[in-house]
This record gives sequence, structure tokens and C-alpha cells, in this order.
Amino acid sequence: MIIVLKPDATKDDLKRIVERLESLGLKAHISKGKFRTIIGAVGDEAILQGEPLEVMPGVEKVLPILKPFKLVSREFKSEPTVIRVNGLKIGSKKVHVIAGPCAVENKEMIVEIAKYVKKAGATILRGGAFKPRTSPYSFQGLGVEGLKYLREAKRLTGMPVITEVMDPRDIEDVCEYADIVQIGARNMQNFRLLKEIGLTKMPVMLKRGLSATIQEWLMSAEYIVSQGNNNVILCERGIRTFETATRNTLDLSAIPVVKQLSHLPIFVDPSHGVGRWDLIEPMTMAAIAAGADGVMVEVHNQPEKALCDGPQALKPDRFLELMKAIKKIAKVVGRDL
Amino acid sequence: MIIVLKPDATKDDLKRIVERLESLGLKAHISKGKFRTIIGAVGDEAILQGEPLEVMPGVEKVLPILKPFKLVSREFKSEPTVIRVNGLKIGSKKVHVIAGPCAVENKEMIVEIAKYVKKAGATILRGGAFKPRTSPYSFQGLGVEGLKYLREAKRLTGMPVITEVMDPRDIEDVCEYADIVQIGARNMQNFRLLKEIGLTKMPVMLKRGLSATIQEWLMSAEYIVSQGNNNVILCERGIRTFETATRNTLDLSAIPVVKQLSHLPIFVDPSHGVGRWDLIEPMTMAAIAAGADGVMVEVHNQPEKALCDGPQALKPDRFLELMKAIKKIAKVVGRDL
Amino acid sequence: MIIVLKPDATKDDLKRIVERLESLGLKAHISKGKFRTIIGAVGDEAILQGEPLEVMPGVEKVLPILKPFKLVSREFKSEPTVIRVNGLKIGSKKVHVIAGPCAVENKEMIVEIAKYVKKAGATILRGGAFKPRTSPYSFQGLGVEGLKYLREAKRLTGMPVITEVMDPRDIEDVCEYADIVQIGARNMQNFRLLKEIGLTKMPVMLKRGLSATIQEWLMSAEYIVSQGNNNVILCERGIRTFETATRNTLDLSAIPVVKQLSHLPIFVDPSHGVGRWDLIEPMTMAAIAAGADGVMVEVHNQPEKALCDGPQALKPDRFLELMKAIKKIAKVVGRDL
Amino acid sequence: MIIVLKPDATKDDLKRIVERLESLGLKAHISKGKFRTIIGAVGDEAILQGEPLEVMPGVEKVLPILKPFKLVSREFKSEPTVIRVNGLKIGSKKVHVIAGPCAVENKEMIVEIAKYVKKAGATILRGGAFKPRTSPYSFQGLGVEGLKYLREAKRLTGMPVITEVMDPRDIEDVCEYADIVQIGARNMQNFRLLKEIGLTKMPVMLKRGLSATIQEWLMSAEYIVSQGNNNVILCERGIRTFETATRNTLDLSAIPVVKQLSHLPIFVDPSHGVGRWDLIEPMTMAAIAAGADGVMVEVHNQPEKALCDGPQALKPDRFLELMKAIKKIAKVVGRDL
Repeated sequence: MIIVLKPDATKDDLKRIVERLESLGLKAHISKGKFRTIIGAVGDEAILQGEPLEVMPGVEKVLPILKPFKLVSREFKSEPTVIRVNGLKIGSKKVHVIAGPCAVENKEMIVEIAKYVKKAGATILRGGAFKPRTSPYSFQGLGVEGLKYLREAKRLTGMPVITEVMDPRDIEDVCEYADIVQIGARNMQNFRLLKEIGLTKMPVMLKRGLSATIQEWLMSAEYIVSQGNNNVILCERGIRTFETATRNTLDLSAIPVVKQLSHLPIFVDPSHGVGRWDLIEPMTMAAIAAGADGVMVEVHNQPEKALCDGPQALKPDRFLELMKAIKKIAKVVGRDL
Repeated sequence: MIIVLKPDATKDDLKRIVERLESLGLKAHISKGKFRTIIGAVGDEAILQGEPLEVMPGVEKVLPILKPFKLVSREFKSEPTVIRVNGLKIGSKKVHVIAGPCAVENKEMIVEIAKYVKKAGATILRGGAFKPRTSPYSFQGLGVEGLKYLREAKRLTGMPVITEVMDPRDIEDVCEYADIVQIGARNMQNFRLLKEIGLTKMPVMLKRGLSATIQEWLMSAEYIVSQGNNNVILCERGIRTFETATRNTLDLSAIPVVKQLSHLPIFVDPSHGVGRWDLIEPMTMAAIAAGADGVMVEVHNQPEKALCDGPQALKPDRFLELMKAIKKIAKVVGRDL
Repeated sequence: MIIVLKPDATKDDLKRIVERLESLGLKAHISKGKFRTIIGAVGDEAILQGEPLEVMPGVEKVLPILKPFKLVSREFKSEPTVIRVNGLKIGSKKVHVIAGPCAVENKEMIVEIAKYVKKAGATILRGGAFKPRTSPYSFQGLGVEGLKYLREAKRLTGMPVITEVMDPRDIEDVCEYADIVQIGARNMQNFRLLKEIGLTKMPVMLKRGLSATIQEWLMSAEYIVSQGNNNVILCERGIRTFETATRNTLDLSAIPVVKQLSHLPIFVDPSHGVGRWDLIEPMTMAAIAAGADGVMVEVHNQPEKALCDGPQALKPDRFLELMKAIKKIAKVVGRDL
Repeated sequence: MIIVLKPDATKDDLKRIVERLESLGLKAHISKGKFRTIIGAVGDEAILQGEPLEVMPGVEKVLPILKPFKLVSREFKSEPTVIRVNGLKIGSKKVHVIAGPCAVENKEMIVEIAKYVKKAGATILRGGAFKPRTSPYSFQGLGVEGLKYLREAKRLTGMPVITEVMDPRDIEDVCEYADIVQIGARNMQNFRLLKEIGLTKMPVMLKRGLSATIQEWLMSAEYIVSQGNNNVILCERGIRTFETATRNTLDLSAIPVVKQLSHLPIFVDPSHGVGRWDLIEPMTMAAIAAGADGVMVEVHNQPEKALCDGPQALKPDRFLELMKAIKKIAKVVGRDL
């Protein structure tokens, strides 16, 4: 931690800051420059996190040196994390495609879509049973009944399933039926939910919040890992910007940035990222070209009648074409599909 | 709802859209212009919310006519909502000042600060017992113990208290000890929490999400009110932008916008809005000048040792000065303090 | 400047960085911490601006200590700058109100509006002759003819006039007719225009760019001042965010932030900030409460027929009411109007 | 244009709006719904652009039906525009790579880099002679001297050159030396510059503004084309968001969105998009996978001593690797390199 003093800071100000650092078990390294005096706090910077040194008299600003996350960082663990789900290896050379509808609407549709996407090459089935909806008047999901239909689809196709959990009280149910638990973008900083998931060993897909920095996102992953659950998959799904041509702005540079900072696998959800089915193919191609470990794509057999997010769902035949296209891209970047 | 057709939409496309609208109980009003055919869906637009008409062949875009919220709207209820809390009237002519520390750290500090802020003119005491923190390694609040200290401070000062709830499982406890329950910015779209709070009659302060539009914020209020709880106070606390000079960008234009759209009272939290104690006074003045029904200000007796958000807390003497200043502003805009 | 080394930086990396700093005339102050080695570059930090030390092997990040602007900073000049315009003192105790139409449409209208706003208490007349319009098919302003009408309005009312310049080739004309030259938001980083204006002694109002940080804005002011023209007035006019309820998001916290960082006067343009006439009054009140040195408000005698930005113009009677309201606010914050 | 009336709009309000539309030569198509009366303005919508109907009494909102750009739209011209530059075809099946330093620093370096990038497969040389810099104290470019060095590099390598123009007064010089003129992000709405460039026939690369919507960007292209110059190449270079891990957020979804809306070719500048050399390769891969017609990459022989943007420049050997990698990606998406 570097503490920059104000030009008019007094000797007493300096003394008090040094005393404060020393009382916290750190050494103060003072450097008087032409325009400013700066103090380097030598020792474990973590001690200073949350210490409001900014408000001490004479302090102009405080600059952190270290990143605030540890367990999820590359420095802590240099080799990539590979997560095993039902025999699959997430984060390995193989690129995984998660596909399925936004919401489970009934048994027939989820089974039918599951069969389609499996045939096309998807390895994991998605489907929401608990749905976070902006409006209280929108379809809120089938709940546990939806989880049961997912299990039926898994039984018939062999595909592991991923579904969202929104409430700590549902974790037990969701863990019983799902192979991967999803934490949605709106819950990325629902810290109680993160902690509870951290107490399980379930694979978790942690979506990036609508306006979360990459650092905040990794801090949320740290919440889970710090409780003992290392099975975290990150998922970029678009951030909120001023642009209205797309539902969100898909931040693909997050892929190589995360790869540098963390050992965790990272997926991309182009469906939420752009919100329009006709942009999904190019953005999926781009995601894999940029190094994503997998993608999550919404597929619906009747998008025009979908109860949720129809405009961003691919029809099965378009999904099949997409799978062919990304197979070639994966190969070029040294991955399998 | 207005449906704009693509220039190359066929007669069959048009026919199918009309049939779809009619099957939903709406009338289709067709208008062929020079460049586009447009269809007005006449009837209850709410029926169409969530219907993915965008994906029907021939559709270029769908324009909603009505706002998606109802119960919280001015059209539904034109007179302002006044919420009674412990004898206080929130949303009345009187501007209320909520003050206190970010977090309850121990009994002595909350009692001491409570006495200070009451003397200075604050009418409601704030203090967090359950704290949402970006880092799992930061102080997470005292929990129920903190709630008890708040009650003690209330007993000694007579001030009602507000505190945050983060988890549906804590609602019962928080409702037992608090007079107003706060839903934090990060939980603005924690829909399960909103619904549960909606089932109580507790006054709720709903903070705006970091990247929530005003419309989404009102939809979250609609979640609460639609369950039967009308006692919702909105609170603007800054939105996330590219600017880094302040912690967030305080959107004061939200005050008159909300006043036009909704009958609910609106407060402003300048402490989180700017994140720096030395900017709080001008922004509090501005908030009241713009028509806020109240403000929420962080006050700490030792900001430099605060366990949470010290840099944005006022010391008691600065708070006293602030109270004097805003008293005058309130009068100018026709309010009492 | 602080240079933080990577955990795996070698001795040779360190040596080369030290040599580089020394070759630039700076001293290197090395501090080896538990997790990182950091180097403080002691000497004139300005030497390092633009030096791409980040790309040297072993460097993790570079943290600047000083602000990049000088002449416009409070450290360089602690007392506020007061700019004289036609006998008025901008930046003094008196709050100034600039009023007038978005564009000069013809002689009659500008003269009529000028008389109105003068009577209501405005001290400076605005009116665009060269208009930056998003569409090439929109009204682009009357050019020099418009400047002549402004002069006529000035002759009849005695009010100094402000008008925008968009092109270095128009500076001579604009300076001949105007008392204050405006640099619009879209030209805030038109560096050639800034330099040319800097070579005159004309008072300049520099609007903040749509997505400019406060630091970038002050750097643009530095461009003007560094050429010898100290007469710069800053003007906050809203920044671009995700919110669509208002045209832009008016960042009123920029007022106290700028007051801390710089000695230049700062105005607010609520008309562009919100883009809707019915929100102008509360936001003007808030701007003055937050400490603005003045405001710029669009007034039109027939907003529904305005050739430019009609929706954000006040009618003369509403402007009169506004003037009465802000007179009281100004007094409360210790200013005159 | 659809005009939505307020619930309390009177018959007189309606009558006045209809009269206004008719006076402008349009027909009013009235539709009375359950909650709102809406008026469709039938005829040439362009007539209404800029008409401030929002301020007429009784109007709640105005919804445009058509896009505001014409000449640059797919509806106006369905086949893609191919621009010829020195024998090259921009916007054809072949993906073009523009490479070179941020700024021309001297003759030797630009010639050396030109030879390198040509050998590696680049087809166009970049190099700034007039540089827009945030700080007045940074290197501002060599001006006409730099243009002469670019011509020398062209003479020796045969590569056409692209360079930026910032001031209408430099257009003649730049057009004499360059093959493609670049309008930088900060000048995207420098409308006078756009118009002047529109009066030439020079190929222009129009970079997207830092906070420009895609629609505004296309409107700026419309400025150029409406003056008679059809040779416009768009270039996405990152938009400003809250994320600080990268210099900007590269919006790759702009590629397919622009391809749908417009016939103009679109390039991507990953160097400015991310601002860090170590992220350029994955983002270039992604750009081509998403359908870009070309990329512009900064290459410098000594990035650590570059006078401008060193941190985002590739060294020649890394550029060579990049060229190999993107050759394969281009093939997969049906393009040549």
C-alpha cells in the first residue's frame, strides 16, 4: 500500500500515519520527493484492506499494490483449474457448449430440446426452474417441478444439467437435481448466497454482474472458494453500457484478462450478451476465437411462443449450423469441441 | 404496443401477426405508411408483456406504449404516498434525515452516535448489522447482536432505526428489531427477497441498483407493492459510470423523474453516492434543493478507525454544520426539517 | 511515479528500470516488500508522462502520484479565478444566469427572447450561430448572419453574448461578435481548436465531453491555459450513462470536485443535462445549491416550433419563475444573483 | 412517427396536433386504445425529424419508426460497398491488416517498421503525423514532415498509407500524402471536418466515438456520404465503460450490427480497444471471427521507447505470429488474408 501525502501535510500528520501503520504490524518506508512525500507500507497489505487511511489528516490518496483476491489468482495457483462434471472436464482442451431454453416450460419441451442439442453436439443442458424476472407479472419459473423435468431430460439424454439458484433456501433442492448450479448476474453480489454455495462442493457457474468490474467478479468467486468450494466457472454475459442496439455489451476482452488474473475457467453467454438471436453466431465464433473455455447458448423449439427471452433463442436448425461453425474455430485455436 | 413491420414483410407475415394478436384477445389496427406498415395492438397491453413478437417473421421492432409498472405509478395513485414510522410521516412536507454509522461496531459507538445525531436534528438512526461487503475478508457485520445494539440505541434516544436485510431467512429477525428495513443496491433485483418483504407490512427503503434504470427500479418497487406492502421508500445512491473521481455518480435528476412517474417518496444517500466525506455537504444541499423527501448520511465518531466505509462518514461536528445548512435549503423549497 | 514489479521480475529487470529512470534524470528509490518490489521515481514526474514504462520487462503496473494538469490546478493557484466579461465578474460571489435559445433562428426571435430574459434577471445571452447537429439533414445554424443578430440583441439589451465555435477557421468571426466563446461537448478534445482559442484572450466556456472524466476535462482546459489564455469557464452538461429517462445524466458532484482540484469557475447547463424542460427547475436549484458559479438555461418563446432542442427549452414565463426560485437558493448558499 | 398522448390529453390537444401534422404535409392516423390515444403520422417521417412535437400540450412521447440515416443504410443499398485503395479492395472477401506505429517519430523507424509489417503480410501502413493527445505537454506529432516520411515508406514498400486528419485546414496536405484519411474517435462528431472530407473523394476511415451509439456513428458516416464521398470505412475501437482492466471496452457486437444496418465495410482496432499489447492477439482473432473486414494493429520496433501509446504496440516478432494466427481464422470464416 502506498500512501501519498498532501503537499501541506505536517510532520505530525506523518508521525501519526507511521504510528498507525506500526500499530498494525507494518513498517513505514518514507520517501520525500520534490512535490510529495509518500509512505510505503511494508508487510502484509491484506491487513490494510478496509482500513480507512484516506481519512487521516494529511493523506491525499492511498494506492493499493496487490490485488484483493488470492485463492482465485494465478499467483496462488498457476495451472488452470479443471472441473469435473459427470465425466466432463470443464476448463480442459475441450470447449464445452451448454444449450437449452431460458426456462423449463413443461416436460415435453425440455426433453425435445435436450435431444436436439445433444444430437447437435452440446454437452450440457441448460434450463431455468427459478427465474429472476424484472416484472412481478412475468412467468417466474416452475420451481421444483421444473427441476424434475430437467432430471427427466438428463435421464433420457445422459447430459448433465445446469440451472439457476436465486435463494439460499433452494440450494438443497437445486443441488439434488442439478450438476452445475448457476448464480445469475443479478445475484453476483448476493454474498449470502455465495457463501452458502461455497459450503457445498457443487460446480458453480458465476455470471458477471451487469455492472461488475472484473476485479469485483473475481472477488465474488473468492467468496465461494474461500468457503472451500473450488469448482467455480466464470461466465461473461455482457455488461451494461449506453449502447441500445444490443441488450448488453458483450465484453470479450474479459476472457484474456481473466485468463491472466485467474486459474478459473471462463465461459461466454452470447444470448444474454446481445439479446438477439441473429447476432449469436458471430459472437459465439468470436468468444471461442478469444479463448473461451465454453459457451452457453439459448435454444428453443418455438422461440416465438417462449415464456422467457424468446428473442434471443436459436431454433434447433440454426443451432446445428452454429455447432458446425464453431467446431472449425475451436480447431484453429488449438481446442477440441 | 406498436409492431413495425420490415419493408419486405409479406401479406402472410401480416396475417399471422394479426391472428396472433387476436388469439390473445387484442384487436389489430393496421396502418400502411409510405415506408412501413405498422400494427397497433388495441386492448390490454399487459397481455403482450413477455410475448416475443420480435421473433415473428416480418417484424422489425416492437414499441411499447405503456409503462410496465402499475401500482407504484402516478396514474394509478396521483397523491403522494406518506409512510408512517414510529409517529414520523415519511413523504410529507417534512424532510427527514437518517444518520448513523455504516455498520454497528459495538454498543457504545452506536449509542454515542445515536445521541449525537439526534441532538443535531436527525429523526431516524441507521446502522448495518448484516453488511454486504465486496471482499469475504472484510468485516461482515455483527448480525443479530448488532440488531440488539440498535434497539438499545432506540430505547435511549427514541429514534426509530433502519437496517439492511440481505437474506430472506433474516427477515423475521430484522423486522423484530427495525422500524424500516433496507434493501441494498446489490439486492435491488433479488426478487425473492423483494417478494418476502412484500408479504410483510414493514416500511422498506429500496435502494437503486448500481446500474439500474429508473424503470427497473420502479419495477422492483412493484414487486414489493404487488405482494400487498405499500410502504416503499425509494433511495437514490449513485449509479456506476466511467467517472472515477467519485465512488459513484449521484443521479439527482432521478428525484424529479421519480416524482413524475410514481407516488412513492424518494430519499438520497449522498455518502454512497460520492464516497468521500468532503463532498457530502454540497450534494446533500443539492438533493434537498432538487426535491428529495429525505437524505441518509453516514456519521461516525471515529471515521479513521471505522470498520466499514470510513472515508465517506462525517464526524459529528461536521454533521451538525450540515444540519444547519440543509435546514435553510429545506425552507427555500417549501419544506420543513 | 511508483513502479510495481511483477513477482517474478529478475535482478536484471530491476537494473534496467533503474538505469532508464536515471537516464531520464530521476532517482530510483527501491523498496522490497514481502510480495512485491516497488520503485519510487524521485524527481519531476512530468518527465515520465508518456514514457511507456509499462512495457519494460518485469513491470506489473505504473502508478502516477501527481495529477497531470498544472496551470489549472488549485496547487498552482489557490485563489479562485474571476473572469471579467463586459463589466461582469464570472466566478465571483454573484451567480450568473446565461439564457437564450439553442439556435438563433432569426433577428426578431433572438431580440424578443433577449429582452425577456434580461427582464427576468439573466445577465448573459446565449444563442447558437454554428450548430453541431447529429444529423446532416438538421438545421445547421445561420452562421455569420446569426452572429450579427446576436450583436443586435446585445446592442438593444446591453447583455454580453456567448456563442459556440466549431471550427478554427471561424474563430476570428466569432471573436469579433461574441463576448464569450463556447467550446461544445463534442469538441472538448478537438485539440487544435483548443490551442487556437488559447492563443486569443477571449473568455471561453469549455463544456465537458459526453464521456470525459473530470481529469480529461481539466486537461483540455490546460490546453487553452498553456497557450496563454487564462479565461476559461468550465461547464458541466451531463454525461452519457445507461439511463434513458433523461437525455444525459447531470453529474452535479463535478461541481465540488472541480472546486477542489481547480481555481476555474464552473457553470452547469441543466437543459442539455436532462433534455426535458419540466426537469430544469429542480436541477437548476440543485446546481446552485451544490455551489455552481452560474447556470446556462435554454429559453425559447415558441419551444414547439424551435428549430433545435425545443423539448428542453423553457418558455419565458417559466423562466421568470425559475429566476425567482434560484434567487432564494443563491442567498442560502451565500451567493448573490 | 407515432405520437402517444397523455391519458388526460383533451380534444383540443388532439386537434392541434393533427393540424400541425397536416400543416407539415402529413396525414394523421388516430387510434384510440383503452389507456391511450395514439396518432400515426403517415408520410415522409424525415419531415418530422427535429420537429419538437414532444412539447405540444397533451403529448406523452414520440416514437420514431424509421432510422435517421439513409444513404449509408442497407435499405438504400443492399450490396456491400467495396472501396478501392491503391489496387486493394476494402470490403471484399479479403481481410486487410493495417499495421504500423501510433506516431511517425522519424524517417528510419517508419521505414523499418513498414518493411517488417509488409513482410509479415500487412497490406496498409499506419502512422500518425498529427496526433490528438490528452495532454498539451505530450508529443503532438511531426506534422507535414511526418507525412513526407510516410510517403517515403510507401515508396520503398509499395504499401498505401493511412494517417489521421484533425483540422479542416490540414485536409489538403493529408490528402496529398495519404491514401486513406482517418477521422479519430474524438473527432467523430466534428461535423465541419466530416463535411469537408465529404467534399473530397478520399477513402476515409471513421472511428467510432468513445461514447457514440452505433446509430450516431452511422449518422456521422451519413454526413460524409451526403456530401458525395461514398468511400467510408467504419472502425470500432472500443467504447468507454466503467471497466478499468482495459483502456476501453471493445464492442465486437458492433460488427454484425453494422453489417445488418449498413453496406459500409467495418474494421476493428484492437490496440486502442484494449490498450495492452498482451491482449491484442485474442481480440484480433475474435474480431475476424465476428466478421470484421479488416483490423488495424499498432506495431513498434521499440515499444518501450515509443513517443505515443507504447503499451499497446506489438513488437515485430509478435506481429508476425499474430499474422499467422489470423490467417487461419480468416479461412474458417470464408475470408482470405
